[in-house]
Amino acid sequence: MKQLEMLYEGKAKQVFRTDDPDKIIIHYKDAATAFNNIKKATIENKGVLNNAISTLIFKELHKAGVKTHYIETINDRDQVCRRVTIIPLEVIVRNVIAGSMAQRLGIEEGTQPSNVIFDICYKKDELGDPLINDHHAVALGAATYEELNEMYAMTAKINEVLKELFLKMNIKLVDFKIEFGKTSDGEIVLADEVSPDTCRLWDATTNEKLDKDRFRRDLGKVREAYEEILARLQKIVG
Amino acid sequence: MKQLEMLYEGKAKQVFRTDDPDKIIIHYKDAATAFNNIKKATIENKGVLNNAISTLIFKELHKAGVKTHYIETINDRDQVCRRVTIIPLEVIVRNVIAGSMAQRLGIEEGTQPSNVIFDICYKKDELGDPLINDHHAVALGAATYEELNEMYAMTAKINEVLKELFLKMNIKLVDFKIEFGKTSDGEIVLADEVSPDTCRLWDATTNEKLDKDRFRRDLGKVREAYEEILARLQKIVG
Repeated sequence: MKQLEMLYEGKAKQVFRTDDPDKIIIHYKDAATAFNNIKKATIENKGVLNNAISTLIFKELHKAGVKTHYIETINDRDQVCRRVTIIPLEVIVRNVIAGSMAQRLGIEEGTQPSNVIFDICYKKDELGDPLINDHHAVALGAATYEELNEMYAMTAKINEVLKELFLKMNIKLVDFKIEFGKTSDGEIVLADEVSPDTCRLWDATTNEKLDKDRFRRDLGKVREAYEEILARLQKIVG
Repeated sequence: MKQLEMLYEGKAKQVFRTDDPDKIIIHYKDAATAFNNIKKATIENKGVLNNAISTLIFKELHKAGVKTHYIETINDRDQVCRRVTIIPLEVIVRNVIAGSMAQRLGIEEGTQPSNVIFDICYKKDELGDPLINDHHAVALGAATYEELNEMYAMTAKINEVLKELFLKMNIKLVDFKIEFGKTSDGEIVLADEVSPDTCRLWDATTNEKLDKDRFRRDLGKVREAYEEILARLQKIVG
């Protein structure tokens, strides 16, 4: 398989075409952004860490029967993945209330809700990725009601697998954001990454933040947090 | 039945206790507000018009089997209603995209979606009545999933009844906001008003706005629009 031209450059990754029409190469960069691209920095080695973390997590999800775009990791920054059409929604799961939900609804960060909370946001930078609901997603043509139900069912399963995995690492999975894509034969699969860039991960004992909030909130030791996640993950599944 | 002290003063109405614990008196004021109370004015006679419009609409809804808090209209500004505990949600139905949804999602006002859109907002002035979803409503303790489903089913029915009623008046029901309350025996009923304060109503031929957007957007002839709605309604059901 040969790497061809870049198809797309995102905030933290580049996507390349290959000579196989059903496969792409995803390259993990060190760039970090927050607040819809207002805050930018480079976190040394983040790409390598997120590639390694994401690889281990995709493998765990596959073991649990969750379909993802992941095929294989070919070097310390690159993954071969199935080529999909990204569904323009961010699906967010909240086991603990934090971040934008805490702010928007005036709820103290760290509050434990009685139910698991699912959000969807419309992926559109110029609108600031607004929170929407299923009816909006359908009206926008982003997904059908049936596709949304399938995504929610997959998301619930992913949450169960990840919660358990992180708990073994003494980490509380506070919330996470995932994206889905459709393959050429119409199958919905988990796409994008699962890493400290896309999850809120708190040490279960100390509540220390081990995720991108360290960058968003200038808490320092960003790279060290990602390294800690990888080290704990490798101890469990490496 | 005797009117007792005021229980609550809202932006457009006052609510009074009566000597019957299950009944309240709702008094319709002429005050108009918009944008979360930033814009304020008095629209002469609005209270009388909305009381009359709301009365006719509640009666139509009752004929169609929709349960509401409405009991009777006792003078040109006052209704006797069942005393309920208001569920702190605004339920919005959108048959045509306009207002905040058009703005938030960058959709042209007047766009006809393929589906009927339901929104819920958390009634909390200090947060600006934010858009939420079912999971948030449950986490906030505003309603259970079962209560939400009951409200959505009632809302769909109300939409059907009102769309048909307004169409007979050559008016397009673009969108509307309703609220629900729970009676002392736990029954969920439509509460609050249904009027040009809470509906977007466009002349079906000219698309002329005949609702509170005339006030919000300084289009002039606000009272005349409300009078027009009442006149057309009286021709059909008066």
